[in-house]
Amino acid sequence: MTDPLVFFSPSGKRGRFPEGTSVLEAARRLGVDLDSICGGRGICGRCQVEVGEGSFPKLGIVSAPDHVTDWNAVEARYVSKRGPLDGARRLGCQAKLCADAVIDVPPDSQVHRQVVRKSAAVRDIEIDPIVQLHYVEVREPDMHDPASDFRRLQEALAHQWNVPDVTAPLSILRILQKTLRAGNWSVTVAVRKSREIVAIWPGLREAAHGLAVDIGSTTIAAHLCDLKTGEVVASAGVMNPQIRFGEDVMSRVSYVMMNPGGEAELTSAVRDALRELAASVAKEAGLATADILGMTVVANPIMHHLFLGVDPTELGGAPFALAVDGGLEIPAKEFGLDFAPNAYVYVLPCIAGHVGADTAGVVLSEGPYLKDEVTLLVDVGTNAEIVLGNRNKLLACSSPTGPAFEGGQIASGQRAAPGAIERVRIDRQTLEPRYKVIGSDLWSDEPGFAEATAGTGVTGICGSGIIEVIAEMLLAGLITPDGVVDGAMAARTPRIESDGRTFRYVIREGEPRIAIIQNDVRAVQLAKAALYAGARLLMDRYGVATVDRITLAGAFGSHIDVRHAMILGLVPDCDLDKVGSAGNAAGTGARIALLNAAARREIEEVVRGIEKVETAIEPSFQAHFVGAMAIPHKTDPFPHLEAALGLTFKRGSSEGEAREGRGGRERRRGRLAAE
Amino acid sequence: MTDPLVFFSPSGKRGRFPEGTSVLEAARRLGVDLDSICGGRGICGRCQVEVGEGSFPKLGIVSAPDHVTDWNAVEARYVSKRGPLDGARRLGCQAKLCADAVIDVPPDSQVHRQVVRKSAAVRDIEIDPIVQLHYVEVREPDMHDPASDFRRLQEALAHQWNVPDVTAPLSILRILQKTLRAGNWSVTVAVRKSREIVAIWPGLREAAHGLAVDIGSTTIAAHLCDLKTGEVVASAGVMNPQIRFGEDVMSRVSYVMMNPGGEAELTSAVRDALRELAASVAKEAGLATADILGMTVVANPIMHHLFLGVDPTELGGAPFALAVDGGLEIPAKEFGLDFAPNAYVYVLPCIAGHVGADTAGVVLSEGPYLKDEVTLLVDVGTNAEIVLGNRNKLLACSSPTGPAFEGGQIASGQRAAPGAIERVRIDRQTLEPRYKVIGSDLWSDEPGFAEATAGTGVTGICGSGIIEVIAEMLLAGLITPDGVVDGAMAARTPRIESDGRTFRYVIREGEPRIAIIQNDVRAVQLAKAALYAGARLLMDRYGVATVDRITLAGAFGSHIDVRHAMILGLVPDCDLDKVGSAGNAAGTGARIALLNAAARREIEEVVRGIEKVETAIEPSFQAHFVGAMAIPHKTDPFPHLEAALGLTFKRGSSEGEAREGRGGRERRRGRLAAE
Repeated sequence: MTDPLVFFSPSGKRGRFPEGTSVLEAARRLGVDLDSICGGRGICGRCQVEVGEGSFPKLGIVSAPDHVTDWNAVEARYVSKRGPLDGARRLGCQAKLCADAVIDVPPDSQVHRQVVRKSAAVRDIEIDPIVQLHYVEVREPDMHDPASDFRRLQEALAHQWNVPDVTAPLSILRILQKTLRAGNWSVTVAVRKSREIVAIWPGLREAAHGLAVDIGSTTIAAHLCDLKTGEVVASAGVMNPQIRFGEDVMSRVSYVMMNPGGEAELTSAVRDALRELAASVAKEAGLATADILGMTVVANPIMHHLFLGVDPTELGGAPFALAVDGGLEIPAKEFGLDFAPNAYVYVLPCIAGHVGADTAGVVLSEGPYLKDEVTLLVDVGTNAEIVLGNRNKLLACSSPTGPAFEGGQIASGQRAAPGAIERVRIDRQTLEPRYKVIGSDLWSDEPGFAEATAGTGVTGICGSGIIEVIAEMLLAGLITPDGVVDGAMAARTPRIESDGRTFRYVIREGEPRIAIIQNDVRAVQLAKAALYAGARLLMDRYGVATVDRITLAGAFGSHIDVRHAMILGLVPDCDLDKVGSAGNAAGTGARIALLNAAARREIEEVVRGIEKVETAIEPSFQAHFVGAMAIPHKTDPFPHLEAALGLTFKRGSSEGEAREGRGGRERRRGRLAAE
Repeated sequence: MTDPLVFFSPSGKRGRFPEGTSVLEAARRLGVDLDSICGGRGICGRCQVEVGEGSFPKLGIVSAPDHVTDWNAVEARYVSKRGPLDGARRLGCQAKLCADAVIDVPPDSQVHRQVVRKSAAVRDIEIDPIVQLHYVEVREPDMHDPASDFRRLQEALAHQWNVPDVTAPLSILRILQKTLRAGNWSVTVAVRKSREIVAIWPGLREAAHGLAVDIGSTTIAAHLCDLKTGEVVASAGVMNPQIRFGEDVMSRVSYVMMNPGGEAELTSAVRDALRELAASVAKEAGLATADILGMTVVANPIMHHLFLGVDPTELGGAPFALAVDGGLEIPAKEFGLDFAPNAYVYVLPCIAGHVGADTAGVVLSEGPYLKDEVTLLVDVGTNAEIVLGNRNKLLACSSPTGPAFEGGQIASGQRAAPGAIERVRIDRQTLEPRYKVIGSDLWSDEPGFAEATAGTGVTGICGSGIIEVIAEMLLAGLITPDGVVDGAMAARTPRIESDGRTFRYVIREGEPRIAIIQNDVRAVQLAKAALYAGARLLMDRYGVATVDRITLAGAFGSHIDVRHAMILGLVPDCDLDKVGSAGNAAGTGARIALLNAAARREIEEVVRGIEKVETAIEPSFQAHFVGAMAIPHKTDPFPHLEAALGLTFKRGSSEGEAREGRGGRERRRGRLAAE
């Protein structure tokens, strides 16, 4: 008689096994992805399967529930403790093959399940964290055998899980004996990289969590993830307390330069904030911080160094040498984090002195290196990090956009916060503006707007509003392609007013009065020209005249309207359907590195292969910058955009302004080059 | 024309190399052991060689000093800075081959030099520490290349030393940038296991030191060693401050059991003492503790656990389960030790719950596993650790000797200290004793003894004195082979006095009066019978009736007279020429592990292979114990000893005493079993 044939769905793997082989054992031998923490003891319930019923002619199998052994005492005990199994499910470790069977492995019984992501442009995340839980039963000590408790635990992991020669730090060795005895010689062990114990609990433990962190100059965001499902179980963000040492990172570097030892204060500030943040998300999820088994971190180069406790002074001036750029694995306790006894922090690699682990996170999240299409990734802040390329090659640079896109150096500018104007439209005929403010969904000309904004007021204009108003002013003819607020338009609308030798456009009367002045337009021109020139420099280097996809990352990238951004000439022309926001892609990168061990080596290799371009010493950057001062551009064509808008841009000369702009840019570079 | 032929002495390696090849390069290619820290830059002077002069017909070489290139500017610079080279020496990195040459590599130019040890029975130590120094010149940072300082350091180590992919902890990354710049891009790096940076200094650094530590129950001893020469540059010992928690280790375990959290106090006490000890030896050697690049530790199981911060409670009762037994590598800072930034502590493996890393140190030092002769190693304290075997097999056990050998439970007993009687001889005719005390070289019957001991007095009798006096009493007929102080001898000497129902022997009148009472003899019989029975048990297990060599380790083993020890029947009969003391062999084992990386794996493997025998549950132990109560033994022959002494021992019955003794042993076992 031949052995029973078993077919696993959805993997499609099949094989014959002797009668009495458990479904779990058959799955393991075939390499079918079927979970188990308890190792087949019927305790964890992770190996649930369904036995198919019916005839499967294509497979040559007739399957039925009684083609595996009947319910046994172990399953009865499981159900009495944990509640009934869904539908006709069985525990794979208990159901043993009697005859041919088709076995379905539901997604929640798979170890390496996929986390499906919203955007179709990016791949799903395969769950395969660097830390795995293993339940083991350890031999009791015996006078005849002097093997230590730790050696017998090692043996149990080797024999029961094929995880040999694990090591343990003092923090684990200290609690080992009590834990083994508390669990009556059954414990669950969290093992990192199949070689080092991270945590140990008495009895069976199924919960495993990790933290993905984005340390931004302004805010620190943390996402607590279930390492089994990939789900974010709690998120929180706090202001980066380093702000008291300087609004932008460069001023924090200045603080360190002026105050020897100041880096220790900055380091303590960010670590303290992170510790509180971790405690807060853990609490929200009903966990203790000691339940956190690992953390991943993205940050810009200066925040990266300050978090590590490395003096960032070298990043404050040429040649902007990083102390360290590779991915780092560091015990969490070195950061004062009271996570699991031997939890580690993984810090993603930095790309260059101006292009940090946050950009590496964006690259990991968006995966341009996996695609044929040439993608332009832009992360906009006071510095713009720009990555261009596809599976053949990736290039990266940073460009000093300055604070205009965050509302800085703009007369009525402010940070994005309730009360800030974030959307603007200007009627092409009446030249009257209407706008929306953060905190309300109403346009300013809709009924109820005043009531809706009574709480916040209308306090200023934030980055996305600035981009829109200037794009709208161009479309309405209120500014020239050279960026001059056109005084002649005062004849058509009282909102154009004289402002000394220049003119301004009044968006809102009242307190505060909100207007766009000539200098605001200049500041935005300088910022957008820097960004555009950086992108064009990379395109030259890559050898393409156009890009296939543009993705804007970061909080700012999420809020700007891509059409207005392109009208302004912030980014090159592209099919508008392929221009989009990736949201907090850096944070997503941290989350991927948390959930998938291989992603760490992957991003390290990708980053090592990225060709870095230093805009400050590239002669052609200057030429690109001059051309990009015009709105949308002095010479570059925008065919996709013009088609979408149904218009043709006028081209003007911007020589004068470009020269002026270059001077301003140089001044800022001195202050901001290292951000 | 053929290339020049070079012959290296003493290695005997030879080869032909193109003219212009440096001697250092030729040595490297041939695998000749020629040192260099600076990598051939003529800075460190480690590669000094002598060029032979004359005809070497057996080698087919005529050699002369001018068969290498003449002195060059680099050598001139070296000599001007560091002084002239010895004799006709040259820097091997600068002298280049012009013609055939015989090159002598003096011992101080070899990396893997041998430390010659005093005893002919043990091998020399090859110097090959786990931490090596490498001088490197690092590329400066460059705007065109974003590689971090650490990556460029990695590259330098890979290219200049063939040490690729080193890692560095935060403590090194934090000081990296300043150190590189302070050294003008030349630094010396201490690398552990060719993969992890331990320390970094600007410029060239040649000094490398490590600490070998023996944490005993009573004293902690530390030896600061030069990792280049193997030399001990400073040593010191302090009392183990844990003594305030209990004189012996078992009472310290009791303290922990009675005082929850008490293990933390004990751990702090030993670590604080060790920190102070390290500072003291470093200071003595003119170094800072930050110059210590690593430490090795031996300790008994309870001290081992307490040093690690592991609660030793499990070692206080059967089955005496160790938390961990393998060799451990742990960052020094986890012990609060302020050594080099990334220095590690290596803790030798434990053999069993009663047989610790100290015994592993003895095994490593004495190397019985390398020999054909069957060696009996005994480390005597309140517990005796016994190891027996040779290259085929090693066995180990511990036996509870109790405190008698340390002067405990002896009426006039005391610890070994100035004023204690350590040697005793009894005249066979007059039955008068003479003795020596610690602190004087004079015998008590020599002129000047009173003056010489006036400072210390004569305060009691220590372990070695107790062994001698009882052996002498047997030889003089003052005690029977059963250990009864013979009252009949009172007729021959007034020094035998009645003491209730038993008798005593007075060694010294005066204050204090020092006598050996019947109970003292019983205590010594119990102790020596335990030790002897343990040794015999191992001999049975091994299948030998005699041993080829006996080595006594530990402070006590260094001070006892082996002949008297054998008369007492402390150890089995053996050729007296092959019975000796190994001094502080445990500490020597720590030193070997410090100086030779391979020794760590070696002792770990050896320890894993040692067969442990638990005396408490071996039925035959009781029979051996009963026989060993007699002095020297009830039945076992001592042919070597009898031949050396020119006498034949009388044999008596010791049944009665053995039963009594067994009871006493059992009582002590309850208290001491886990030491």
